[in-house]
Amino acid sequence: MGKTIKIGLLGSGTVGSGVVEVLKKNVDEISQKSGTEIEIKKILVRDLKKKRPHLEGMELTDDINDILKDEDIDIIVELMGGLHPAREYMLRAMKAGKHVVTANKDVVAQFGKDMFGAAKENRVEFLFEASVGGGIPIITPLKESLTANRITEVMGIVNGTTNYMLTQMTNCGNDYETALREAQELGYAEANPAADVEGYDAARKVAILASLAFNTRVTLDDVSVEGITHITPQDIEYAKELGYVIKLLAIANDSEKGVDVRVHPAFLKKAHPLASVNDVFNAIFIKGNAIGEAMFYGQGAGSLPTASAVVADIITVAREIVKGIYAAVDCSAFQVKPFCPLEETESSYYIRLLVADQPGVLGTIATVFGDQGVSLKSVIQTQRVKDQAEIVVVTHHVYHKQLLKAEQVLLNLPVVTTISNVIRVETKKGEV
Amino acid sequence: MGKTIKIGLLGSGTVGSGVVEVLKKNVDEISQKSGTEIEIKKILVRDLKKKRPHLEGMELTDDINDILKDEDIDIIVELMGGLHPAREYMLRAMKAGKHVVTANKDVVAQFGKDMFGAAKENRVEFLFEASVGGGIPIITPLKESLTANRITEVMGIVNGTTNYMLTQMTNCGNDYETALREAQELGYAEANPAADVEGYDAARKVAILASLAFNTRVTLDDVSVEGITHITPQDIEYAKELGYVIKLLAIANDSEKGVDVRVHPAFLKKAHPLASVNDVFNAIFIKGNAIGEAMFYGQGAGSLPTASAVVADIITVAREIVKGIYAAVDCSAFQVKPFCPLEETESSYYIRLLVADQPGVLGTIATVFGDQGVSLKSVIQTQRVKDQAEIVVVTHHVYHKQLLKAEQVLLNLPVVTTISNVIRVETKKGEV
Repeated sequence: MGKTIKIGLLGSGTVGSGVVEVLKKNVDEISQKSGTEIEIKKILVRDLKKKRPHLEGMELTDDINDILKDEDIDIIVELMGGLHPAREYMLRAMKAGKHVVTANKDVVAQFGKDMFGAAKENRVEFLFEASVGGGIPIITPLKESLTANRITEVMGIVNGTTNYMLTQMTNCGNDYETALREAQELGYAEANPAADVEGYDAARKVAILASLAFNTRVTLDDVSVEGITHITPQDIEYAKELGYVIKLLAIANDSEKGVDVRVHPAFLKKAHPLASVNDVFNAIFIKGNAIGEAMFYGQGAGSLPTASAVVADIITVAREIVKGIYAAVDCSAFQVKPFCPLEETESSYYIRLLVADQPGVLGTIATVFGDQGVSLKSVIQTQRVKDQAEIVVVTHHVYHKQLLKAEQVLLNLPVVTTISNVIRVETKKGEV
Repeated sequence: MGKTIKIGLLGSGTVGSGVVEVLKKNVDEISQKSGTEIEIKKILVRDLKKKRPHLEGMELTDDINDILKDEDIDIIVELMGGLHPAREYMLRAMKAGKHVVTANKDVVAQFGKDMFGAAKENRVEFLFEASVGGGIPIITPLKESLTANRITEVMGIVNGTTNYMLTQMTNCGNDYETALREAQELGYAEANPAADVEGYDAARKVAILASLAFNTRVTLDDVSVEGITHITPQDIEYAKELGYVIKLLAIANDSEKGVDVRVHPAFLKKAHPLASVNDVFNAIFIKGNAIGEAMFYGQGAGSLPTASAVVADIITVAREIVKGIYAAVDCSAFQVKPFCPLEETESSYYIRLLVADQPGVLGTIATVFGDQGVSLKSVIQTQRVKDQAEIVVVTHHVYHKQLLKAEQVLLNLPVVTTISNVIRVETKKGEV
């Protein structure tokens, strides 16, 4: 056994506590797999006075310099979250020659380039398996196991909060507000749920996945984002009738049209492997030109699952220290690929409209779609809503810009009261 | 870019051709990810005269020494299959200082210890991602991404041939012989299908997975094996009625009773993530004390998917050569855990019996089970088969030895004509 490897832990919240617990309860296996003992030397906390019985006997500090200037510490494990000061602390740590392990999707999605640069410059590891998919191994597989592929598609359910809410809405008929309240009561959603329900959490994760999968830099700003706040029980019901479920999907495509990365709710065929991923589970589906299709499934959040990913990264670093090697995989964004503008993306769409309940309306609407080159796959159902009629249409594959144009024209028709909702339908082009 | 890395390829069959194709079509990505060019220098074939248009322009040889003694060759990629001479060639290659990448589950499951020993002794890599689950990344995740866990369970569908057959039997009502013939026509089953249908292929794979997951040596001989040859359309139908599908499962448990590794068909609840893994797809489900549950899904066989795993291993080796490091993860079987004898394993069972169609028979049979301490969950259906009655019972969790005893007593009853089938039902203990 080599010298004990010492960790400086930044943050002692849910994931931090999980890391402490996992390192403790699996201590024998972990030291055998690492070839050395691993010890948390210091923990950065915000408030030294707060009671933390689970950290009994550990050295706490509220001064980052206590940790960054401690030459005994080999690895900084950053679990504070948020952009600042997490980014600065990690950069300083690397400059001081310390390896960094983080679960911070915000920093990786926004400042990935700087972080990888700093890691390379200082010959340290910068590992972030826990930033996407909680415990699910997906970063290492992308960096090491799927390297023989040209990956063309990544599609995933990467936000547990919204997946729990949509599952509740689907299985119990709950509306959005009820589902959100339940998720909050269970601790799955924050008091301010915006980052989850508006899709930004998923967007950060898919930016990271797309960068790794397509070998080009994708940041949060490159992701088109739409959340689930507008999904109603009616939409869920129509989806069911048509043989679909609604999921918040993180999608990234790399095609001749460019790289296209987005987060939005979508109708997904019930038979699709992602359709049965329920509650807080996450899953990531990958398509590559050698492997075909592969999927990774597991718990996308939570104290111990996320700690599983963090500690795996710690072990990876420990093994390198023990062997005296620097085995970091170079930053994989070695290409600069153009993006495909959202308007040029293609999809099938579900559109729910409220219209005047009078003869000929359906014909008028169908004509508008036709004029914009939007061919309709089906008008699945109409029903009366007070003195109006509800019409639901599903289109064949059309460009997003065609859809936008058709919407505009429809809204100007006197017979159209409102477009209640528009949701993408995940089908392959030409699929019926 | 460093010096070109040269490969000696042993075998030019399905997977070998896939490796040639993948290295060619993704050449740019692969060289950027490796940091160097990768080139197949020589290919060992059995018959030099056979036409191989896809290997046009490549150097073929039928003499292993041409490859093993070529000092220019850095990596041997063994895709011949079978124990011998594959094992000997790989050992010789390692002794000659060459890294080895293989898809050979037979050798890894039977001679893993020797292979890892030789690799360590000669400071070369011995990588075998393609030996289990085709393209699905599972070996690297177990060696690197799940290391923080104490893994307690591995359950997978790891044989594509039998999964295709069972899917056909379930969806089309085909009998075993028809399903086998179809699988053979499609090239999914060999002319001699024994290794697949009798479960030995799956057994080799689960031995490898269990060794990695539980950190103890598990070889083919330690696996209890039962194939699918006795599964009939009746069993499939009863399973459906009860809300199950029948799958050939590879199961490994590590509990206080010891390590228990087996392959057998089993009833699996329709809602289980593995239940919807159909056709030639494979999936591996892992339970760990930090990650909870995780699943890896993809194509378990085929030329390109398997090549995806082989080439990923090649890239791993290439990166080490380029960096001038030796980063091999030590053999993970650092513990010696006792095995749990099959008789001591517990399961719920489905039992289909043919009995005399006379009053009181059901009572007699229930009493036999009761006498052996086997509590019945349900007697799901009886129907007449000629002048006899068919009874299907499902037991609660019982020890395998209790089941065996009950079977023995039942077969001695004059009213019992035969026990038509006994199949395990995958439920958690105490689950209703």
